[in-house]
Amino acid sequence: MVGAQARVSSSLRRAAARAFSSSTSPFFRGIHVFQCPDVVGIVAKLSECIASKGGNIHCVDVFVPENKRIFYSRTEFSFDPSRWPRHVLESDFQKLAKHFGAERSIVRVPDLDLRYKIAVLASKQDHCLVDLLHRWQDQRLPVDINCIISNHPRAPNTHVIRFLERHGIPFHCLPTGPGKKREEEILELVEDTDFLVLARYMQILSGGFLQAYGKDIINIHHGLLPSFKGGNPSRQAFEAGVKLIGATSHFVTEELDAGPIIEQMVERVSHKDNLTSFVMKSENLEKQCLSQAIKSYCELRVIPYESRKTVVF
Amino acid sequence: MVGAQARVSSSLRRAAARAFSSSTSPFFRGIHVFQCPDVVGIVAKLSECIASKGGNIHCVDVFVPENKRIFYSRTEFSFDPSRWPRHVLESDFQKLAKHFGAERSIVRVPDLDLRYKIAVLASKQDHCLVDLLHRWQDQRLPVDINCIISNHPRAPNTHVIRFLERHGIPFHCLPTGPGKKREEEILELVEDTDFLVLARYMQILSGGFLQAYGKDIINIHHGLLPSFKGGNPSRQAFEAGVKLIGATSHFVTEELDAGPIIEQMVERVSHKDNLTSFVMKSENLEKQCLSQAIKSYCELRVIPYESRKTVVF
Amino acid sequence: MVGAQARVSSSLRRAAARAFSSSTSPFFRGIHVFQCPDVVGIVAKLSECIASKGGNIHCVDVFVPENKRIFYSRTEFSFDPSRWPRHVLESDFQKLAKHFGAERSIVRVPDLDLRYKIAVLASKQDHCLVDLLHRWQDQRLPVDINCIISNHPRAPNTHVIRFLERHGIPFHCLPTGPGKKREEEILELVEDTDFLVLARYMQILSGGFLQAYGKDIINIHHGLLPSFKGGNPSRQAFEAGVKLIGATSHFVTEELDAGPIIEQMVERVSHKDNLTSFVMKSENLEKQCLSQAIKSYCELRVIPYESRKTVVF
Amino acid sequence: MVGAQARVSSSLRRAAARAFSSSTSPFFRGIHVFQCPDVVGIVAKLSECIASKGGNIHCVDVFVPENKRIFYSRTEFSFDPSRWPRHVLESDFQKLAKHFGAERSIVRVPDLDLRYKIAVLASKQDHCLVDLLHRWQDQRLPVDINCIISNHPRAPNTHVIRFLERHGIPFHCLPTGPGKKREEEILELVEDTDFLVLARYMQILSGGFLQAYGKDIINIHHGLLPSFKGGNPSRQAFEAGVKLIGATSHFVTEELDAGPIIEQMVERVSHKDNLTSFVMKSENLEKQCLSQAIKSYCELRVIPYESRKTVVF
Repeated sequence: MVGAQARVSSSLRRAAARAFSSSTSPFFRGIHVFQCPDVVGIVAKLSECIASKGGNIHCVDVFVPENKRIFYSRTEFSFDPSRWPRHVLESDFQKLAKHFGAERSIVRVPDLDLRYKIAVLASKQDHCLVDLLHRWQDQRLPVDINCIISNHPRAPNTHVIRFLERHGIPFHCLPTGPGKKREEEILELVEDTDFLVLARYMQILSGGFLQAYGKDIINIHHGLLPSFKGGNPSRQAFEAGVKLIGATSHFVTEELDAGPIIEQMVERVSHKDNLTSFVMKSENLEKQCLSQAIKSYCELRVIPYESRKTVVF
Repeated sequence: MVGAQARVSSSLRRAAARAFSSSTSPFFRGIHVFQCPDVVGIVAKLSECIASKGGNIHCVDVFVPENKRIFYSRTEFSFDPSRWPRHVLESDFQKLAKHFGAERSIVRVPDLDLRYKIAVLASKQDHCLVDLLHRWQDQRLPVDINCIISNHPRAPNTHVIRFLERHGIPFHCLPTGPGKKREEEILELVEDTDFLVLARYMQILSGGFLQAYGKDIINIHHGLLPSFKGGNPSRQAFEAGVKLIGATSHFVTEELDAGPIIEQMVERVSHKDNLTSFVMKSENLEKQCLSQAIKSYCELRVIPYESRKTVVF
Repeated sequence: MVGAQARVSSSLRRAAARAFSSSTSPFFRGIHVFQCPDVVGIVAKLSECIASKGGNIHCVDVFVPENKRIFYSRTEFSFDPSRWPRHVLESDFQKLAKHFGAERSIVRVPDLDLRYKIAVLASKQDHCLVDLLHRWQDQRLPVDINCIISNHPRAPNTHVIRFLERHGIPFHCLPTGPGKKREEEILELVEDTDFLVLARYMQILSGGFLQAYGKDIINIHHGLLPSFKGGNPSRQAFEAGVKLIGATSHFVTEELDAGPIIEQMVERVSHKDNLTSFVMKSENLEKQCLSQAIKSYCELRVIPYESRKTVVF
Repeated sequence: MVGAQARVSSSLRRAAARAFSSSTSPFFRGIHVFQCPDVVGIVAKLSECIASKGGNIHCVDVFVPENKRIFYSRTEFSFDPSRWPRHVLESDFQKLAKHFGAERSIVRVPDLDLRYKIAVLASKQDHCLVDLLHRWQDQRLPVDINCIISNHPRAPNTHVIRFLERHGIPFHCLPTGPGKKREEEILELVEDTDFLVLARYMQILSGGFLQAYGKDIINIHHGLLPSFKGGNPSRQAFEAGVKLIGATSHFVTEELDAGPIIEQMVERVSHKDNLTSFVMKSENLEKQCLSQAIKSYCELRVIPYESRKTVVF
């Protein structure tokens, strides 16, 4: 059973297991993401830092947009923690961040660090929530799920409720209504999370909530943004006579359905499709699109860029 | 050289050739498209009509939208013209059309009928026009091109101009400006066409023109409608941070970029794409999307349906 | 709980429900599939038969391959069972089948007929089986599942076993080995099914089994046939350096991985993919490809054609 | 007119133009590709080398395959040639190559270096050749075309022949036959090229030719390798009843249709497709797939990897 109390010990157990196997494979994998004003020599300094501690770079993605002087990078490397302890690694990168005036410098060591803690918000539509839970169960979603919050109740004998009970994941039903967003209670429940996932959560989170929470929120919109913002995009698409429908996962900002897009997926429709099959195809796309976005995010591949875009390494 | 004068004789020559080979293959292919209020027995009567004249049905597509009482069909069949002459076939279908109160009843016999005559309108961007001309030259666009009309001049030694000269296709340069749409002149030039193709023609045709012309006009929009209507959709898409860009071919109506959609195509973009590659990918999609729409239209596969949609058999 | 005993009553309950609502909507949906030697007048007779009993055709697909004289059709229509009772409908189509010497004439009335009964065979890999079970639970797989047969055991507390218990679906573990295919026992267990689904079942069913079972078997092959037949296609693909991997669902014949293909799906891979991600992408494709094939099959859209192909309406 | 003699002066003219505009934009773009045994510190040294000469890195792709100790990188940077002259840049990278025992170290400065010189070999099928010529004319294929070689004649008044005459590109017709591959003559004609493109050239080049030529040869195979090697893959695919057909561009090796794959593209087919439409769809894919491969190759994105694969950055 995975519950809140097991997370730390799980992480420690993994670290211990790694330590014991150190004779065969002492190297841990590290991921570093960096964003700073572009100048000459950033890659040189970053890679020199890693090499000087015996780290070996496997993979580097660097991106400097045309006509902008902003540098983005994502580096994967392996290192020997006995030679480069985690806290030293952390401060070495902090020094570089300070040196370059970086807006963003994040390093993760998946085998040592705690997994990302998330909460998932849902409303009546279950498909995205269930798909995430199944992937999580299959260990294809590398997060810890603190809790599920829904503004729509679910009976005790439903698949979702039984699943959550079996896995020790709290379910909080917070019905909303006009002027009753329950945001204070939500904030309290999600305080200890690293990011939030809105899995077809149909309430609009206020700017106040976004500011108070302060961390990233990933949403799935069941339409191909910027087409069909707002409600019932499947119906909007159906009535617009489009031949392609899609889903969009994006960061949540104050403006509805307008935050930086992380991933989009499409599927063909024709005159043979009715509103029901539009919705079914859309649900299939939403599940894949949302989980792909979360996966990329957890692997530190997603960096918001300018006000509307993302770099997705 | 193919010019206006050669069209009729070309058609007659094809018919003659077929006649002479009648001992080996006397059958011509027919396509019938039908739209009428839905009642019991339409397919029965249509197919009985064909069978009674010895016609053999190869392919039928029938579509009756959910909750609507409108019947659409497209039938491909082969027949022996000595047993079912073209003019009798025409009037047999007319009788059926009258019987069922059909809004639409069109029959074509590609081996006997004249090819569709079109005019292509273009502005400065050449890529769609050139692609259409090359496909036409390769005999993959089964139309006769009456003329090209552009509001943007082209020098005599350019590829397009030399190509048009070589093939005897008139090129008319009609520069436009504020309050100067040249629509009267265009109407005169395109009077003898069956439909028009706007291959990145950047002038908006007025409602008056559409009414006066009265026949179908197919446009290519370099964006994934209904996103990014109007000007510079590549730039709009680029600034919106989308991960998919597309092109849309559609019938032209009074409302800009809102006519029934015929075909849409997409391609992925990422942070690595700049505005130039957005445009290049878009141009590639536009060419394929427009030619696919024209091909489907010529094969009688496209029927406008309700105000915003199409059936594309 | 859905178990074998509930099936009939469920069907009767649906019919009764329809009967009671007959004042608002007396019409049932019918699907007819036909295959016979091609002659003039088949569509006429089929549609006349339907029209004469007050049936209204919604959708017709007819296909006569080039240079072949074989006719395939699929017709969707609605009818009033008080005017055209099920058993009369059945015998009316039988008369037509006899008249045209049809190889295939199947009619289904989803609201009256029993659902297709299937058994699913699996081995160690769970993903396709679990995906099918979840879709079935969501009522997106319109079948009754008689049982699951696996040649690989599963512990009592696994998700699959608990799921099957909860839904009253028997699970039979029949370990196989050299010379020990357990085919006799399998035949007995699946005797009462309409078709079988091999969801990554890794045993090759003998020609004797195929003959004895006599009904359709749908398999998912985790490779893009005819590439990578046989074992470990993901590894084969990985070592072949392909840029696209795929999955194929097909009918099982005596020849391994060579039966008529029903559906294929692909996804891109690059140098960044290792064998693990090849497998993960493949598993995702297999699930979608297999369920799409089963859905098409249940809707009578799939007709084997010649020895290697299918018509998929 | 672009001919062999114009190439050098064209390049010099571009360099001169850049020099004169140096006050506004003194930076040239450089691309460096590197392959060597993997050790700690390669990225550090490469980027330090660039930074030390005032070069600014825009883009880096590094790839070290799992469980292999081989390092691949592609770096894009800009530099001031007055500070880092071309010949110094060349020798600086050579020193690094020597230091790391690199198997591959290539640097290109598109604005200064000569364009790649290619020859295109074709047989009877024209579509890939024509598509390449059109893209080249549109300046979307950044190569100089030394000559076209075909083992199939073309009449003087055909589009291709007139096009080649207009652009001063020599056309050599070298009919082949049993035991008469004309390889000696081909070698002589292509001696001065950087790589070859086989645009549906149907002769198999011998191992002797490949060794003698010694440089890369890119082929387009009109099938989705490794399916359908050899002749008539469209017919093979048609008879295999596949639902997806594709094209593959790859490096030519001694083994027919088995060299490292660069790019693959697919398109759906159904029972409605006959052999003619299989071929048409295939031709469309071949054109896109081949030009994409050539474009990637010219941008130094393609590195053969192990015996069967490519890294395509």
